[in-house]
Amino acid sequence: MRRWNGWGEESTVVELPAQGGAFLAERLGPGQVLPDADLAEVLARVPPSRLLPHTRIASDPETRVRHARGQSLPDWLALREGQLGTFPDGVAFPENAEQIRELLAWAAQHDAQVIPYGGGTSVAGHINPQAGARPVLTLSLERMNRLLELDEESLLATFGPGANGPQVESQLRARGFTLGHFPQSWELSTLGGWVASRSSGQQSLRYGRIEQLFAGGTLETFAGPLEIPAFPASAAGPDLRELVLGSEGRFGVISQVRVRVSRLPEEERFYAVFLPSWERALDGARTLAQARVPLSMVRLSNAAETETQLALAGHPGQIGLLERYLALRGASAGKCMLTFGITGNRSQNAASLRQARRLLRGFSGVFTGTLLGRKWAEGRFRFPYLREALWQAGYVVDTLETATDWRNVASLMGKVEGVLREGLAEQGEQVHVFTHLSHVYGQGSSLYTTYVFRPGTSYAEALARWRRLKHAASVTLVNNGGTISHQHGVGRDHAPYLAVEKGERGLDVLRAMARHFDPDGRLAPGVLLPE
Amino acid sequence: MRRWNGWGEESTVVELPAQGGAFLAERLGPGQVLPDADLAEVLARVPPSRLLPHTRIASDPETRVRHARGQSLPDWLALREGQLGTFPDGVAFPENAEQIRELLAWAAQHDAQVIPYGGGTSVAGHINPQAGARPVLTLSLERMNRLLELDEESLLATFGPGANGPQVESQLRARGFTLGHFPQSWELSTLGGWVASRSSGQQSLRYGRIEQLFAGGTLETFAGPLEIPAFPASAAGPDLRELVLGSEGRFGVISQVRVRVSRLPEEERFYAVFLPSWERALDGARTLAQARVPLSMVRLSNAAETETQLALAGHPGQIGLLERYLALRGASAGKCMLTFGITGNRSQNAASLRQARRLLRGFSGVFTGTLLGRKWAEGRFRFPYLREALWQAGYVVDTLETATDWRNVASLMGKVEGVLREGLAEQGEQVHVFTHLSHVYGQGSSLYTTYVFRPGTSYAEALARWRRLKHAASVTLVNNGGTISHQHGVGRDHAPYLAVEKGERGLDVLRAMARHFDPDGRLAPGVLLPE
Repeated sequence: MRRWNGWGEESTVVELPAQGGAFLAERLGPGQVLPDADLAEVLARVPPSRLLPHTRIASDPETRVRHARGQSLPDWLALREGQLGTFPDGVAFPENAEQIRELLAWAAQHDAQVIPYGGGTSVAGHINPQAGARPVLTLSLERMNRLLELDEESLLATFGPGANGPQVESQLRARGFTLGHFPQSWELSTLGGWVASRSSGQQSLRYGRIEQLFAGGTLETFAGPLEIPAFPASAAGPDLRELVLGSEGRFGVISQVRVRVSRLPEEERFYAVFLPSWERALDGARTLAQARVPLSMVRLSNAAETETQLALAGHPGQIGLLERYLALRGASAGKCMLTFGITGNRSQNAASLRQARRLLRGFSGVFTGTLLGRKWAEGRFRFPYLREALWQAGYVVDTLETATDWRNVASLMGKVEGVLREGLAEQGEQVHVFTHLSHVYGQGSSLYTTYVFRPGTSYAEALARWRRLKHAASVTLVNNGGTISHQHGVGRDHAPYLAVEKGERGLDVLRAMARHFDPDGRLAPGVLLPE
Repeated sequence: MRRWNGWGEESTVVELPAQGGAFLAERLGPGQVLPDADLAEVLARVPPSRLLPHTRIASDPETRVRHARGQSLPDWLALREGQLGTFPDGVAFPENAEQIRELLAWAAQHDAQVIPYGGGTSVAGHINPQAGARPVLTLSLERMNRLLELDEESLLATFGPGANGPQVESQLRARGFTLGHFPQSWELSTLGGWVASRSSGQQSLRYGRIEQLFAGGTLETFAGPLEIPAFPASAAGPDLRELVLGSEGRFGVISQVRVRVSRLPEEERFYAVFLPSWERALDGARTLAQARVPLSMVRLSNAAETETQLALAGHPGQIGLLERYLALRGASAGKCMLTFGITGNRSQNAASLRQARRLLRGFSGVFTGTLLGRKWAEGRFRFPYLREALWQAGYVVDTLETATDWRNVASLMGKVEGVLREGLAEQGEQVHVFTHLSHVYGQGSSLYTTYVFRPGTSYAEALARWRRLKHAASVTLVNNGGTISHQHGVGRDHAPYLAVEKGERGLDVLRAMARHFDPDGRLAPGVLLPE
């Protein structure tokens, strides 16, 4: 059973190792555990549905609770406290495009809002109902999860929009193919959600972001279905795919997705290299990207993240040995771990590995083989479960991410980490902050920052602390050359900061498109476009 | 001096070798030479300008003649006959964004149409003035051609939109960089034009299409300037770059372009391989693309193009030797030439060459080294000059291009070549047709088809023949899974066929955007969006 108030399956439990707890207590003080609400008490608080009965719409309290919130930190706090605010009045589970169209027409007829819902994993407030006079219909696409067609010659697969990561990959793998899109939310998030929010997977260096994988599909809008054919490339005017990508439910509901797939690789390996300092490591990562070494993934942890990861790894004996080995080779305090992946056929991979090693040696990189890389690959989808473990230990964790030009990476990282680290200083609280680069480009890189803090003694205090940190970091990002999101999307939480990136004229044209497709403003109100 | 009625500089002359003439005469019959008009008689026919005088606007007849037409086949016929139809009433040469804004305001005040003009190389009718009551102001960006900023760390260059290929490359090369964008029109076409029409360069396999190279910039619109910041990637809503790409002047005038550049490669080589049949060659090209062999270019000529190229190469002795060598190794009648490029550092290139050769050997490819590849690279921008030579020999040549999925490449090529080859059969005329793939993707490929025919005995007859061929081919493309353009854009000539690709709902949203930016419909009327 999926957790109603947290990440993933109840049966999956990620423990915080003892040294991890000590590491945080030393930096932040002892944990502050807040009481969790029961599902039963939340269910009792769900108000009656304002929607008329409909055969395809569930309006029982549990279904409505389970579709009321995503996985942002405010969502987390609301769920743990049991104070969810607004609920959808009903949740529909259409099984095909025709049913989506009927439900949209029904919503218009009954003056309802509509929230398209994929895996419910948004960390930016995409799927939360907005309080208001209109009833709220959430449209879950979970039943539209099948591989509908596979063109093995053109490497094109057609899916329902509600297929989540495991459903996408298992249906493709059975035929010898992979999409290769692995965001951290992969276990729960869906293909339609990836498209709607411009997701990026951990191996985008090989497979591309969802923008490159999404070849075409159908968007159901109040102006009728918009069918986008899948061409390898086209010069025939503005690319309509790009209106669907990042539309976050404002223009319509994605009813079908065609994606570019790959044959399963012959071989895939992940390697770890330690570099003696942030400066050298950053130059090394940039050089790998700009030399177009055909890797499938590059991830570079800064010194604070490297230290935290080794502390939380849970094998102090082995880690101690590793650290002594690295120190002997020049990577001691301040060292940074760079993980890279190589995916493809054996002879290509061997050539890529030689290139990567030679290049990183030029930055004093110490190569440690595949052990840590394998650990990373095995644990790649476990990080979101850690929030539960930290919460139970009395700590709050959140992440934020951006992308910027290489020239600006170090400076922006310093500023964002700085405002987070000092963000609760007035209250005498420490914030533990660390960062990695997870996606590298010729032009620049993404930055992914994790921050851990104590919640205080009440949910209100925890939320206020988060708001302060999130606002300070968001303002710092957009005013210093960073995008407000490299992979999580805008939702409601980032909408106030979007104008700096898009400009008022950019927002105006997006608003004109929203009016074109949805003149009554029923779809995902409050999301993407600030009101 | 640039030719007023044809391609390129008057001093550049490409001759048709004697065997080339014989080759065509044998297939099409003797050439039919039509008389060319003089510039003087055309100048005498230019009507008075309907624009009020303005210090930045030239309205002398020669400037107006030289900006009246592009390089489509109807343009060519109009220029050679000296019957140009509508002229711009004046041509402005702004030197900065501020002057573009002033000129747009002035055009609105005087109720003029505005045509943004780059290199004048459109082959789809992008820059032709439309007859009507409103005077026409053509806005040439040729003076805005400088490299304004270069970020060597983030590989980002900022240019004026009017920089043509040689201006882009020479300014970058002086600093050790390249854009790597080499469309066939490179000598004359401009960066702003590439962006506005979604151009693709011959080495897009390494450097990307202009969509990947265009990082951001500014579009001057009647709703004010739309500034698009350059991020390495962003998940913050629909990508506004994609509204500018392919906008073909309908939404605004591009006043600044930021592009992603590369360091100059250590080494670059082009190789030719002959494959015994079209089927094997097509499988070989597809496998190269889908295996992600890091090549910079793949071009595959079908059997008819291979035969034509060898016949027109002009060295019958050497070609005869080559053909005997190939026949001994199994590539005789029906053979297809595949050219591939490898660009990068020496050790990467060596690994790529090994992979490509091994892979093509699996399709019975006969490797011939770099001689023919070098010839291709040396002559890569000369093809457009050949229209002049063929014209003087009494033949008309035009090209068209599309892209489709691998599964459909052979079928679509057969259909398009078929309708062209049979297109003038009613008149007892032959059409010589051949095709190559010039851009390969995992999903599919571009198709670039050349067709040569006799003009008949009058300009009216020549135009009618072209119309018949072009219409038959365009209908065949869009009704059989091809895009109406992979690289040339829509302009006026392809606009009638766009609805099949975009759908009426797709065109509706593009029209809504055009209304948003240009409510009075002044910009490039008739282009892109069918009326």
